[in-house]
Amino acid sequence: MGRCRPIARPAAARVGKARGRGLGSRGSSAMAAEKPVVAVTCTAPVNIAVIKYWGKRDEKLILPINSSLSVTLHQDQLKTTTTAAISRDFTEDRIWLNGREEDIGQPRLQACLKEIRRLACKRRSGSPEDPLPLSHSCKVHIASENNFPTAAGLASSAAGYACLAYTLARVYGVESDLSEVARRGSGSACRSLYGGFVEWQMGERADGKDSIARQVAPESHWPELRVLILVVSAGKKLTGSTVGMQTSVETSPLLRFRAEAVVPARMVEMARCVRERDFQAFGRLTMQDSNQFHATCLDTFPPISYLNDTSRRIIHLVHRFNALHGHTKAGWPARVGSVSLRFIRLRGPTSKPPVAYTFDAGPNAVIFTLDETVAEFVAAVRHSFPPESNGDKFLQGLPVEPALLSDELKAVLGVDPAPGGIKYIIATQVGPGPQVLDDPGARLLGPDGLPKPAA
Amino acid sequence: MGRCRPIARPAAARVGKARGRGLGSRGSSAMAAEKPVVAVTCTAPVNIAVIKYWGKRDEKLILPINSSLSVTLHQDQLKTTTTAAISRDFTEDRIWLNGREEDIGQPRLQACLKEIRRLACKRRSGSPEDPLPLSHSCKVHIASENNFPTAAGLASSAAGYACLAYTLARVYGVESDLSEVARRGSGSACRSLYGGFVEWQMGERADGKDSIARQVAPESHWPELRVLILVVSAGKKLTGSTVGMQTSVETSPLLRFRAEAVVPARMVEMARCVRERDFQAFGRLTMQDSNQFHATCLDTFPPISYLNDTSRRIIHLVHRFNALHGHTKAGWPARVGSVSLRFIRLRGPTSKPPVAYTFDAGPNAVIFTLDETVAEFVAAVRHSFPPESNGDKFLQGLPVEPALLSDELKAVLGVDPAPGGIKYIIATQVGPGPQVLDDPGARLLGPDGLPKPAA
Repeated sequence: MGRCRPIARPAAARVGKARGRGLGSRGSSAMAAEKPVVAVTCTAPVNIAVIKYWGKRDEKLILPINSSLSVTLHQDQLKTTTTAAISRDFTEDRIWLNGREEDIGQPRLQACLKEIRRLACKRRSGSPEDPLPLSHSCKVHIASENNFPTAAGLASSAAGYACLAYTLARVYGVESDLSEVARRGSGSACRSLYGGFVEWQMGERADGKDSIARQVAPESHWPELRVLILVVSAGKKLTGSTVGMQTSVETSPLLRFRAEAVVPARMVEMARCVRERDFQAFGRLTMQDSNQFHATCLDTFPPISYLNDTSRRIIHLVHRFNALHGHTKAGWPARVGSVSLRFIRLRGPTSKPPVAYTFDAGPNAVIFTLDETVAEFVAAVRHSFPPESNGDKFLQGLPVEPALLSDELKAVLGVDPAPGGIKYIIATQVGPGPQVLDDPGARLLGPDGLPKPAA
Repeated sequence: MGRCRPIARPAAARVGKARGRGLGSRGSSAMAAEKPVVAVTCTAPVNIAVIKYWGKRDEKLILPINSSLSVTLHQDQLKTTTTAAISRDFTEDRIWLNGREEDIGQPRLQACLKEIRRLACKRRSGSPEDPLPLSHSCKVHIASENNFPTAAGLASSAAGYACLAYTLARVYGVESDLSEVARRGSGSACRSLYGGFVEWQMGERADGKDSIARQVAPESHWPELRVLILVVSAGKKLTGSTVGMQTSVETSPLLRFRAEAVVPARMVEMARCVRERDFQAFGRLTMQDSNQFHATCLDTFPPISYLNDTSRRIIHLVHRFNALHGHTKAGWPARVGSVSLRFIRLRGPTSKPPVAYTFDAGPNAVIFTLDETVAEFVAAVRHSFPPESNGDKFLQGLPVEPALLSDELKAVLGVDPAPGGIKYIIATQVGPGPQVLDDPGARLLGPDGLPKPAA
């Protein structure tokens, strides 16, 4: 059996902007010379779909029934960090998530590991520089952590599996497209392999080789775009997304129609909105697609409801806020629930870009807007959902200036405040794809290949 | 100008089982001889659609984009009572709803009045017995009352306009099909013109002459069927159904698909379920169609949400209840939210027929089940939504025996009770169509043609 060797090759450019490479030196010096541990630590971002993925055409290969498009969120606020270490002396694959050892035998983890080793094996066998390319046969230890609470209901599995795929690729020296590795863990994880704006093309092939993620525009493309995550107080989720989407495919006539007849045109339009930075149309389509996704959940039998009363209040707040800012023309409807037209003025000197919501498989809202609107919208949220206990921690992430609400806005929004409905807000923006961390202090596994004790 | 004459002709058989005729005697005796008042008092039922109507293809004629099918509820529990009086001496049309005078100039009221007078005129002009058939030119006074609170969010407009059409037809001597008269007031009102199970055929003609209601089966057809209305505590409705369905037609791609590709087959299947009294399939399709209607509301832009968190708890309760009673075969899914399969036993000696929900444009649930299941389901509702203040008035309408819940059912249902979420339950059943009241004491207008003082 060959010896595991550090991968000195730079990270593959195809899977994002890698800034480092395999890190083996500290491991080697701390261990006896005959037990080198090769370790790599990477981070990966959360992504939020604006054209939603819901439903698989192949459960095993995780191939979707429609394409989807997402925005990669900045890792300063939300990220997964993963360290993968290989050593000839590890006797089995092991994994720790947020400090707790988990069952490495889970089918999705196994699918990722098998796929990355297949790619590693394939690469080495074709490379004359690596006469003994057997690192892919080494067992691996993996430790992964999120910098945000899993309970927040954010899409941790996408960041998690993207980070796993990216980190394993570096430790095993794989340079090919990682869409399939990440996708086998969690479909939407392939979109977290890139920064900026990313589409996951559904593909047509039965083997899924053309079901891949690609970047539509980099994170630098739309610097004014801002993202607010409104974390909603809620009990546990009743229906997991894996089971949920399977039931939807089996029982919802509307889902099939959406996938076949609605999404293809929406993908084209959304890519245009991004390319042209057309926020008006981007926001409207984002909301419509979120609503349609939740509509197909409700059309499932038994029905699935991820939105709760607070989610619906947020939806209503956004439409009122937009109406007050005059977004009643150019495709924005004038009638917003019970807000009568007399409250709605045309866009004037005080009008601001609109705000858009999207909801994944849970009650939390993700809000998109432009920087000039953020402060006023956050003030509106505070007004409608007065913070209960943690007023000082209500706003996290990027700083947001305090703003005063006009009496007009208060009159429209403040009819029915819901104290405590929103636990906190994370303010963030579009961000880059996965990163390799050079700092040895960032590693989650010690020189012995076991998780470091918590600091 | 001709004199208004009492209509002595029996009520038209085509519009239900009329038991009486125009009542003019008391009015005549109380008034001076030269001022006869012809008055008729009728009642009409509420109907609940199991295949939903949502969306018009013609706003003025109120022609729907799809056919619908409903169950007529019994008037012992829910009804509208209307008295219409005509007199040569009335100088204008007037209307009182629940004791308060309303604007008779409302377009929908005017459309009904115009249509009934057109039919009256047409009939008389073709009848040699009525040489001076001018009662249709008399002004009318109308008083209408519901025996249930309008605030309960029940479909009062359907019963109201059906009753108006039926009563006006009797007072003006119209015997033709009343679908159009009722429909011009409120689309679904045409379904309240019959008892039992009623379909509203969408029709194809531009003038709407073939958009009519007809009875699928009479109320005697399925005597075991029971209906429970769960009145949910809620604020005011944000989007009225008229505005809501118009916005849906304009903005929801899913609604168009539903109307064209889903509903036609569902109409055929639902009529079969009724004919064959197949409750298993009836219940499932009722729930699926309710869910799909609300899905198209959510796909509307801005989205419409009529269901609230209590509605969703009721949905969840029904699926759990059914799962526990073994309704996991024959098309009932085994997986119900977080209820694990180990709780679900196959249909055994204790199993009961299932329960089905449907929701109209509001948060109230209407439950269908068979008589042998009612007591246990009501106990389950009490357990999940403990009554708050009005424990003694929690159950209204038909008597329901108290029932004990099994520990197994309690374990599945009682995880998360929501006190006060349901205000009260009205227990009822399928009922007959509109009725003519012979009892002069039931009249809502006095001999002077004005509302009687409240008793």
